[in-house]
Amino acid sequence: MSSSSSSAPVFHVPAEFQAQCLAWQRAGQRVGMVPTMGALHEGHLQLVRLCRQYCDRVVVSIFVNPTQFAPGEDFDRYPRDLDADLDLLRPYAVDGVLAPAPSAMYPAGYSSAVQPGKIAQVLEGQFRPGHFQGVTTVVAKLLGLARADVAIFGQKDYQQLAVIRRMVTDLNMPTEIVMAPTHREPDGLAMSSRNRYLTPEERERALVIARALFRCRDRVAAGERDARELAVDLMQDLIDGGMDSIDYAVIADGQTLESLNVIGDDAVALVAGHVGRTRLIDNLLLTK
Amino acid sequence: MSSSSSSAPVFHVPAEFQAQCLAWQRAGQRVGMVPTMGALHEGHLQLVRLCRQYCDRVVVSIFVNPTQFAPGEDFDRYPRDLDADLDLLRPYAVDGVLAPAPSAMYPAGYSSAVQPGKIAQVLEGQFRPGHFQGVTTVVAKLLGLARADVAIFGQKDYQQLAVIRRMVTDLNMPTEIVMAPTHREPDGLAMSSRNRYLTPEERERALVIARALFRCRDRVAAGERDARELAVDLMQDLIDGGMDSIDYAVIADGQTLESLNVIGDDAVALVAGHVGRTRLIDNLLLTK
Repeated sequence: MSSSSSSAPVFHVPAEFQAQCLAWQRAGQRVGMVPTMGALHEGHLQLVRLCRQYCDRVVVSIFVNPTQFAPGEDFDRYPRDLDADLDLLRPYAVDGVLAPAPSAMYPAGYSSAVQPGKIAQVLEGQFRPGHFQGVTTVVAKLLGLARADVAIFGQKDYQQLAVIRRMVTDLNMPTEIVMAPTHREPDGLAMSSRNRYLTPEERERALVIARALFRCRDRVAAGERDARELAVDLMQDLIDGGMDSIDYAVIADGQTLESLNVIGDDAVALVAGHVGRTRLIDNLLLTK
Repeated sequence: MSSSSSSAPVFHVPAEFQAQCLAWQRAGQRVGMVPTMGALHEGHLQLVRLCRQYCDRVVVSIFVNPTQFAPGEDFDRYPRDLDADLDLLRPYAVDGVLAPAPSAMYPAGYSSAVQPGKIAQVLEGQFRPGHFQGVTTVVAKLLGLARADVAIFGQKDYQQLAVIRRMVTDLNMPTEIVMAPTHREPDGLAMSSRNRYLTPEERERALVIARALFRCRDRVAAGERDARELAVDLMQDLIDGGMDSIDYAVIADGQTLESLNVIGDDAVALVAGHVGRTRLIDNLLLTK
């Protein structure tokens, strides 16, 4: 543990962080975790505030996990600024920040992994090979380090949340997974650490994603039940709005993420694609 | 939870077992687990006694895990007698017994798994395809259900223990893994639930395994350092002693299980093969 300008104790050594969390739990306290890759924004801070409602001790991990970046992705240029992150966390008096080096998380000899379920093979799984196995493995590690009673994940990464819920259920992990609503800029853009890659012109064009998703939800609210037609129109809206590429634009079951023909009682619209060179994702619950 | 003739509360529903373990931990108590497949014998009871030294609450799981049996193995005929197991446990006043049905451990939709490290690919991994992934996955589930502070495994399944230790380290599981020495019959045969498959004649011939292992250890104690020669002689002793097949007979590093040329400071001899139709395994630490 080392001190920092923030009031939150920062742990660089996973074993020391784990010992602290175990000590809290042996004193009867519940530990809640907010796993992040840093580059914190208001969306993350909302997760921290929500976490506080579920537990006695709030811990935040800040770790740009190399194993969840597919080859050619933005691992090297992903924004990293621990001091800025700690400044942002200061008002929330978190009880611990885990900020390990990659070599502390994946030391020599490391060779196990958590293999995600079938839900990881569609959508992001098709466009980011290995991504979700990187996610499930690092989240299993982080939850194990904190022995977390609860962990908060943002709806923004909806499939990630679904994959993690599947893992926690399948492996009987003693952690409650809570979904926090997507935090949006006033104009609707979903907050993301990757938004800072956008030029002003791209930032403006990126608004098409939220607009298309909200239009889709409005149509469902107005009674539309043909999910295939909604998906076609969602795609068309994205094209018309100037997205530079579209990886997918689907209407899917909220649990299995399988594409729907007809809107049921748990439908979600999911979009991924590029604006300029930046890959953005977003989603909206259509029936809740 | 249902009552039984034993004083130990028996849990058939994993979630109820997990809730009980969490409640103990929130009261500041340490939970220790002894995972078993039932068909308990004195070796298992020794694990239970050892577990008591490490924790406030001792739980035992009795679950013949289908996913760790390779195709064609003895899953169907593996001995099952819960009442007899509970009778054997009675003197130890264990705090809970988890005895779930396979469908409670692997319900519909189940699809995640824990992929073991490279150490799972040699020895047993070569002869029992899928075995260790079944082991790591079910052990992760059981440790998650108990949120175990400590778990006890027998040295008899040495590679299993090494695979589990690798998993716990790699995934930062908050559980201490303790190895209990192999329990042997007075004549040296390692205790195993599968010994009951042996005819009296096979039971006698099976003694060759322990005899060959102890002879190997004696030679190391006397100064022999050529691990390849020791392995050849180990194999020859097994053949001469009447084993019906030998899957492997190796001298390996105690951590990585890679075959050794020269005895170092952590060497183990491992044997697997058949006597009659029964597959037996055994091992002996050569330098500790």
